[in-house]
Amino acid sequence: MKKIIEKAYNLGREKTQQGKVADYIPELSKVDRDQVGLCMITKDKKMISAGAYDTYFTMQSMSKVIPLILTLEENSHDHVFNRVGVTPSAESFNSIKQLETMNEHKPLNPFINAGAILTLSMVSGQDYEHKFQKIISLAEVLMDRRGLEIDEAVYASEKATGDRNRALAYYMSSTKIYNGDVEKILDIYFRMCSLKVNCVDIANIASVLSNKGKSIYTGQQLISKASTRAVNAIMASCGLYNGSGEFAVQVGLASKSGVGGGIMSVVPETCGIGVFSPALDEHGNSIVGIEMLKYLSETMELSMY
Amino acid sequence: MKKIIEKAYNLGREKTQQGKVADYIPELSKVDRDQVGLCMITKDKKMISAGAYDTYFTMQSMSKVIPLILTLEENSHDHVFNRVGVTPSAESFNSIKQLETMNEHKPLNPFINAGAILTLSMVSGQDYEHKFQKIISLAEVLMDRRGLEIDEAVYASEKATGDRNRALAYYMSSTKIYNGDVEKILDIYFRMCSLKVNCVDIANIASVLSNKGKSIYTGQQLISKASTRAVNAIMASCGLYNGSGEFAVQVGLASKSGVGGGIMSVVPETCGIGVFSPALDEHGNSIVGIEMLKYLSETMELSMY
Amino acid sequence: MKKIIEKAYNLGREKTQQGKVADYIPELSKVDRDQVGLCMITKDKKMISAGAYDTYFTMQSMSKVIPLILTLEENSHDHVFNRVGVTPSAESFNSIKQLETMNEHKPLNPFINAGAILTLSMVSGQDYEHKFQKIISLAEVLMDRRGLEIDEAVYASEKATGDRNRALAYYMSSTKIYNGDVEKILDIYFRMCSLKVNCVDIANIASVLSNKGKSIYTGQQLISKASTRAVNAIMASCGLYNGSGEFAVQVGLASKSGVGGGIMSVVPETCGIGVFSPALDEHGNSIVGIEMLKYLSETMELSMY
Amino acid sequence: MKKIIEKAYNLGREKTQQGKVADYIPELSKVDRDQVGLCMITKDKKMISAGAYDTYFTMQSMSKVIPLILTLEENSHDHVFNRVGVTPSAESFNSIKQLETMNEHKPLNPFINAGAILTLSMVSGQDYEHKFQKIISLAEVLMDRRGLEIDEAVYASEKATGDRNRALAYYMSSTKIYNGDVEKILDIYFRMCSLKVNCVDIANIASVLSNKGKSIYTGQQLISKASTRAVNAIMASCGLYNGSGEFAVQVGLASKSGVGGGIMSVVPETCGIGVFSPALDEHGNSIVGIEMLKYLSETMELSMY
Repeated sequence: MKKIIEKAYNLGREKTQQGKVADYIPELSKVDRDQVGLCMITKDKKMISAGAYDTYFTMQSMSKVIPLILTLEENSHDHVFNRVGVTPSAESFNSIKQLETMNEHKPLNPFINAGAILTLSMVSGQDYEHKFQKIISLAEVLMDRRGLEIDEAVYASEKATGDRNRALAYYMSSTKIYNGDVEKILDIYFRMCSLKVNCVDIANIASVLSNKGKSIYTGQQLISKASTRAVNAIMASCGLYNGSGEFAVQVGLASKSGVGGGIMSVVPETCGIGVFSPALDEHGNSIVGIEMLKYLSETMELSMY
Repeated sequence: MKKIIEKAYNLGREKTQQGKVADYIPELSKVDRDQVGLCMITKDKKMISAGAYDTYFTMQSMSKVIPLILTLEENSHDHVFNRVGVTPSAESFNSIKQLETMNEHKPLNPFINAGAILTLSMVSGQDYEHKFQKIISLAEVLMDRRGLEIDEAVYASEKATGDRNRALAYYMSSTKIYNGDVEKILDIYFRMCSLKVNCVDIANIASVLSNKGKSIYTGQQLISKASTRAVNAIMASCGLYNGSGEFAVQVGLASKSGVGGGIMSVVPETCGIGVFSPALDEHGNSIVGIEMLKYLSETMELSMY
Repeated sequence: MKKIIEKAYNLGREKTQQGKVADYIPELSKVDRDQVGLCMITKDKKMISAGAYDTYFTMQSMSKVIPLILTLEENSHDHVFNRVGVTPSAESFNSIKQLETMNEHKPLNPFINAGAILTLSMVSGQDYEHKFQKIISLAEVLMDRRGLEIDEAVYASEKATGDRNRALAYYMSSTKIYNGDVEKILDIYFRMCSLKVNCVDIANIASVLSNKGKSIYTGQQLISKASTRAVNAIMASCGLYNGSGEFAVQVGLASKSGVGGGIMSVVPETCGIGVFSPALDEHGNSIVGIEMLKYLSETMELSMY
Repeated sequence: MKKIIEKAYNLGREKTQQGKVADYIPELSKVDRDQVGLCMITKDKKMISAGAYDTYFTMQSMSKVIPLILTLEENSHDHVFNRVGVTPSAESFNSIKQLETMNEHKPLNPFINAGAILTLSMVSGQDYEHKFQKIISLAEVLMDRRGLEIDEAVYASEKATGDRNRALAYYMSSTKIYNGDVEKILDIYFRMCSLKVNCVDIANIASVLSNKGKSIYTGQQLISKASTRAVNAIMASCGLYNGSGEFAVQVGLASKSGVGGGIMSVVPETCGIGVFSPALDEHGNSIVGIEMLKYLSETMELSMY
């Protein structure tokens, strides 16, 4: 297996010049595009890794999984899915038009920006700081570590250039789908996107999702079985933005990507995978990340389908 | 002519129970729907009026004409129309989707909310207060009076419920079409919409537009001929939101409506007309106002077409 | 006046290298782009012309005016406008999406292809041939001449490449807006678009529309006053496809263009104008045609606004 | 297991009054809504069934799987997915607007009508009849039986009311995505949708897809592993129209529905399931079918996620 991982890594290394590092947030564009990391954590607690597996990068949209889990655990699934859909989007992740054209102005799913802002707003808490602390706590539990930190430069950059997200939030506020203080929710949203993680962290979260919600280390049920299944199903159809369908055909693993270059992949009852490389395809997904996952899926026959 | 005006007024009175008073701004919904006002000011300075012609109501979207004039006078028309289109919209006045789908993310025209916020932002000024003072000054000059006031309750209501407009402004900011402080521009926008006017004021503005930009009282050129023609052309095709085409067929006068219930109509080289009645049709235009204008247009053969 | 017309013509001649001759119908692309024609016919029956004013070209979308007039004359305006809107379109003339997204699946206006096919289907007749004969008859009456002919090569080309129009017609058939045999209506539609006209023909039609529906030669009421007004109003806001708003600001005349390079313009109570030059702008309107009309409008102060 | 199947069936029986039998094709609306059928065929060739498991109904959209398989087997996957996407649609199955708005005018996926018509057109064959025979042959092989028949009344009804599909095909023809005779392809399409199948047939097809493309009876590779995986992946994200995301969360099985009331479900390496009951939800999926699958998935822990 170590060999397959090495092979995947080497294959990835060859493709780091393709695609484009995210530049819509100025701070993100400064990153070194040659970085490639990979980490797989199996159900029997083995960790196989390669390259920049312990390099930190920002979590970006992979973080959207956390408030979704919290919201599903705190509410009935019906309540949640009455407010946010589970329909994949054929549009870009920051598209606004479907908030206007779709029935009831519901965001299509929890992984486009509008949907993530909405699920984040549904997390209970005495105040916005409390909400954020719950996000951090759950993230740390799932990553099996402490001391999660924010990349302050990225956070400042997200905040300074976040007008599209402001538009999405104010639009949802105008249709009464969303309640609350827009700037304060977005502040949490930007901080959550700026969390510094590495491939090990990502693989650890995925390992829980691959294990019906239980820690592979302690056997403790960290997420209910039902919520785990829902999150995996949504990742399978909406996890790579409008590249999700193609990814399902080519890789076939419930996954969530982020524009920081990370992808988190779940192999049910087998392992969790975290990959990282900054250059992105036209949908905003790591090109090298997808290539490596494709290789792993084919070679090890990991596809769910 | 007095008789025709009276007849139009009586015809209007019969229809005040149709339609719906605007309620998206809570304060607007409190108005008495039975009010009907009408005022015509002819090129030779005669004023014929009926009903509640001197009752105050808020200017709302009719005010969008003022920053459009200012922007056209301060810039080349090319410069202005490179940033805001002159294409009528088949969508509602507060629609956001075309900002996403149209080329260059330009607002379709200066009379949908997005376009008006944008032209307002283009008015020069040392600061936002200065911009607003220029709006007020031009409005007073065109209305031939002083002491224009804001309806503070409506202003507060607009501001409290203005999230759709915030979404539009932040969206334009995210695509770099718009520059500036969103909350500050919207503050001017909400104040401008809350200006208290009556049918005489409206007819006076229209009289200038009907007179190639000259005051009918002093003969002074208040607006350049070219800008006057542009404003009238845009009013003719975009002035009644997505009801503009129907209005062109039925009435045929360059006009601008507001959800406060007012409509301003220009009869080239003849007269300016102001009508008022609060209940609106599904496009947001005064039902009684349109009925009265239709009667006047048919009886006096005023249609441009 | 002759001088102004000459000047406009010369101005036009300089710009024949701009833009692109229509090529979506192969036959149209064979035309000589250097041709420029212009004809003005005044209320007192004077004809001033320049250049290729008597060269034949195909009528294309200008022909849409004919079934619109027939339908308006045969039905109450309410009946017509319940089936086809009068809302300008921000989309291309052969766009289909608004048939799906707009209320009741009504075509936005009678001058986009869908709307023209629909109004054509509403013209009464014992059979399709009879309908077509009525189109020809009215066209000849308005042009004050006999012997109108079809350009057989263009007709064959339109028919061979008319799948977009088939899609529009079948879509309308599926929503029950349209009734009848799609291929037979489209056959008339393609023949109508292929009628050979010159600038004099076009100016003659416009002269009737500029004269409240009366022949300038005989004084006979050829089109009712009400239908004339409706047609002019729709031309003013929808006549140049999604370039209509811009044209209203720059020229300000109720007009109808065709991709054959012709534009028909109405100056109320003054004259009818026909211009022709094949190269088109991005909306499908004759570039040189617009330039000449703009010059005429500015110099002679013809704008309605 | 027999008990669970019985329980699912009884649960389904209670809900046959919900929803609406398809009526867009008049012939479909005549069916008895009380019918409920269910059949499961396991990898070790056991068949467990209940209710109207051997009643015939028309295959409708479930038949779209057959030309997709043929096309994938005859071409490189890249070639196929360059012409038809694998993106789930948030719109109705017969929507046309995304053919206009999406890049390259590609149908979003092979299971919306446009996409199915396109994949059907890509199946090789000496003529249209030959293409259709290949469809029938593959269907019979996958169903492990002979004598597949068409419901002539439904076929005639589909053909008579198929204008929306004509619009889709002509639109694709106008953008050059599609080549061929529209009426002839649609004739095959309508015949294919009218094939009479029962739950056993459906479960048999699903059993092949659940067995990496091999017959569970003979072990023969009927579909390549790669094509099987692609078909399952597309069914997982696009198989229940715009209800696919919800179904993934609630049931979690790669499935394809038809408006005849059938649903085909694949449980990888375990079994194939066919369910049937005519009344549909707002997306066009069998309400009772989904309820039974949901019960089976929960009770037997079948979800892939």
